[in-house]
Amino acid sequence: MERVVARLEPLLTEARIRRMRSVLAVRSDHVAFVFERMIDPHNLSAALRSLDAFSFQDAHLVRPGGRLGLTRGITIGAERWLTLHEAPSSQACLSGLKEAGYRVYASHLGGGEARPLTEIDFGRRTAIVFGNEHLGVSEEMLALADARFRIDMLGFAQSLNLSVAVAVSAFHARREIERLRPADPAPARFDLTEARRQSLYEQWLRHSVKHADRIVGEEGD
Amino acid sequence: MERVVARLEPLLTEARIRRMRSVLAVRSDHVAFVFERMIDPHNLSAALRSLDAFSFQDAHLVRPGGRLGLTRGITIGAERWLTLHEAPSSQACLSGLKEAGYRVYASHLGGGEARPLTEIDFGRRTAIVFGNEHLGVSEEMLALADARFRIDMLGFAQSLNLSVAVAVSAFHARREIERLRPADPAPARFDLTEARRQSLYEQWLRHSVKHADRIVGEEGD
Repeated sequence: MERVVARLEPLLTEARIRRMRSVLAVRSDHVAFVFERMIDPHNLSAALRSLDAFSFQDAHLVRPGGRLGLTRGITIGAERWLTLHEAPSSQACLSGLKEAGYRVYASHLGGGEARPLTEIDFGRRTAIVFGNEHLGVSEEMLALADARFRIDMLGFAQSLNLSVAVAVSAFHARREIERLRPADPAPARFDLTEARRQSLYEQWLRHSVKHADRIVGEEGD
Repeated sequence: MERVVARLEPLLTEARIRRMRSVLAVRSDHVAFVFERMIDPHNLSAALRSLDAFSFQDAHLVRPGGRLGLTRGITIGAERWLTLHEAPSSQACLSGLKEAGYRVYASHLGGGEARPLTEIDFGRRTAIVFGNEHLGVSEEMLALADARFRIDMLGFAQSLNLSVAVAVSAFHARREIERLRPADPAPARFDLTEARRQSLYEQWLRHSVKHADRIVGEEGD
């Protein structure tokens, strides 16, 4: 793996390398985002772009039917910098997240018994679930989640556009991490581990260099 | 004006009236939003929907060329509940806002000399300016504004979708008002005046009742 860095880094500009390292330094897996049965690839792409912007690494896609294509133009490639986890069912997705210590909040944008986004304790590892554009989060998902959340709407409109809801959630989660991190006894828990940073860095190097596989592999061991 | 309320209120359900009053109670003109030369009516409609959701009343539209149509389907009519101010030039728009005591921040999403959104002092009356989707805020507007702001982006993407940027800004401004208001010596300054509430209430009643003008006017004085 050392070799990936040694071979690819010299092919990139200093500015590019600095950029990747500065993104890695703030990248977080403390909050994960789940997208369940989302239909419109534009919505998903816009959502992923917000995750990148507020620097959350993990998107979990629940899609029983198979792949949901991503729209290159909309994300400007944001999904290339994220880790996309695909799960065939809500159950499979959430059991993995819960094992990894995430408390799961399903969006319940229609109101009802749901905690405001702004009252979620982001001091804990948190997964935020968004559902299908038309149907919302499934009954199965609601039953499996630890709790429900909503974004408080103070006007006449009854719901937010999905990409807006994701962006606001990611923005808020990032603000909460910035607020909580400095006073935390173990601030590194908000960050990626060093091992994960290293592995992502190699992956990003590969994404940044044309024919990276050939360059890394061509001289054999 | 008493008559408007007396005639129209009985035609609406209790729930509807409660809704309008509860929206009025949180509605604010402490933060205003300016949209300069925006091209896509979908973007503007989505932006207005976020203003409604986080309950800001005033949208200022700078459009030298004339009217920019609003897309009913996208806002679900959010613009009906807002006050849209149209100005033929950036100068005309900002001089009005400055006279009314607003400190004007122009978005400078490309970075540079700009204050992060999260460091704006929303204790003061604040106007937030968004520009054209492709060109951003004009040079003229940047020169006239009091300061520039940006939304900090921590990933690889260089810019946020406009509707996302507006939503995040409105969400954050609302949070700041909620944070500042309770400790403020004059909390009412964040709210609409009683006179403005009354006038909006009448306007909303008219929007909610079919043939409102005929009903209000038909018995003469």
